[in-house]
Amino acid sequence: MRTLLPFTKMHGLGNDFIVINALTKPFSLTPLQIRYLANRHTGIGCDQLLVVEPPTQPMVDFRYRIFNADGSEVQQCGNGARCFAKYVRDKNLTTKNLLHVETMAGIIHLHLRPDGNVTVNMGKPRFLPTEIPFQAEETALFYPLEVDDRVYQISVVSMGNPHAILIVDNVRDAPVQTLGAKIEQHPRFPERVNVGFMQILDKHQIRLRVFERGVGETFACGTGACAAVVAGQRAGLLNTSVIVQLHYGQLHIEWAVNDTATVSMSGPATCVFEGTIEL
Amino acid sequence: MRTLLPFTKMHGLGNDFIVINALTKPFSLTPLQIRYLANRHTGIGCDQLLVVEPPTQPMVDFRYRIFNADGSEVQQCGNGARCFAKYVRDKNLTTKNLLHVETMAGIIHLHLRPDGNVTVNMGKPRFLPTEIPFQAEETALFYPLEVDDRVYQISVVSMGNPHAILIVDNVRDAPVQTLGAKIEQHPRFPERVNVGFMQILDKHQIRLRVFERGVGETFACGTGACAAVVAGQRAGLLNTSVIVQLHYGQLHIEWAVNDTATVSMSGPATCVFEGTIEL
Repeated sequence: MRTLLPFTKMHGLGNDFIVINALTKPFSLTPLQIRYLANRHTGIGCDQLLVVEPPTQPMVDFRYRIFNADGSEVQQCGNGARCFAKYVRDKNLTTKNLLHVETMAGIIHLHLRPDGNVTVNMGKPRFLPTEIPFQAEETALFYPLEVDDRVYQISVVSMGNPHAILIVDNVRDAPVQTLGAKIEQHPRFPERVNVGFMQILDKHQIRLRVFERGVGETFACGTGACAAVVAGQRAGLLNTSVIVQLHYGQLHIEWAVNDTATVSMSGPATCVFEGTIEL
Repeated sequence: MRTLLPFTKMHGLGNDFIVINALTKPFSLTPLQIRYLANRHTGIGCDQLLVVEPPTQPMVDFRYRIFNADGSEVQQCGNGARCFAKYVRDKNLTTKNLLHVETMAGIIHLHLRPDGNVTVNMGKPRFLPTEIPFQAEETALFYPLEVDDRVYQISVVSMGNPHAILIVDNVRDAPVQTLGAKIEQHPRFPERVNVGFMQILDKHQIRLRVFERGVGETFACGTGACAAVVAGQRAGLLNTSVIVQLHYGQLHIEWAVNDTATVSMSGPATCVFEGTIEL
């Protein structure tokens, strides 16, 4: 029997999502159906599918599930979390401004700001080479990395996923595709790595382009923005509060420059359209 | 003032469209708005926007307008014409099976088949080098074309737009991206060219991959399918009725192998979802 599935299309700085309300009707899409929905030519098209479910634990407002375009379920997505918060408020599914949301990676806290932006707690950064993972003898702020007989100075940060950050004079001319692909596949990163190219404008502001692991250049990588800022802060190049300029807008990253502090990310979430698809 | 725009998302073999009904409310989108709608990450996403308007001439059922994702209006789109016909029938805007539709390129005839496929008259193919345009001393079935010190045998056909066709042993391994890009830009095609890689399975069936001018490889090029079949028919390699296998399905091309005959293309059109967007 064919069913009609209502959905909302959203994006956070160009990272785009299909959002499905499964509060009253259990979510039951197969990986094949998710791949169909995510196809940009024959389906709706999205980077990830977000599902709003009832909580399974006490003291939690919602359960937030995330599926990649290939149908696999994933742990976290910062841009998606902002869209999730905006969705449940826009749809009057809650009246709260501070949401406690259950994810595969634990409970996260989403804060709806009066200006419409959403703040997401992105967890603690990690710097030990074994936590990235990255092959190095000891921990450092910058590591020399050899690529094609040239040596680049990189920082490494884990935000739950691995990041390498390079400081460049100008992101416009940065070799994001070519050098990004080579660092992503570098043998010193056994699980490969996301590669951020950071241009420092002043102590409060950077421009960033990211080569995402397994994907190529993407317009908005939330964990990449956190990793770049944290790397700059530890090196004394950035203050505790930094604006990150990305292709479709900006994120605001805050970190206390203290290994026990968590990173907070604030940014926009946009509803694009409402739709109904037959499955 | 913000307005709500209802739309339907459709595709013809993966060539995807936003379809807008402007029969009762005049169409008034700006190029900037069309670019916004066509953006696959921050808008709805499409290859082309199709508009259903009332006819401006007698004996015509509808006016069919086509806009590219960059906001420019274009003359024709065969995959779009199939979706146009399916749309006006599915929405009960007509009860006819044979439609006469006004386009920038003249009146076209669309035939809705009982099996749900739509037949489109694609016009007469042209073969004179000056009609392509292609630089050659005289007209031939195959022309030697030098690329990187290798010589390829190509056919050239205009279906309103220019096509070069190469016969390959297997489309799976054909160098569509690399050789396609080089032929597209070859100096003997002053207005560049679409490049088709055709694998002949038997006299009734081919596989085809197309490098589309200015775009790269696309999954379904209607004029490319016509051009490839016509080139094979003229060379005596194909019969008058041929199935073209493309990435997302097949087209049926018929031509009487006679320079005064028009080419007919039959194939599917699919409604994907219904939506509403605020502008």
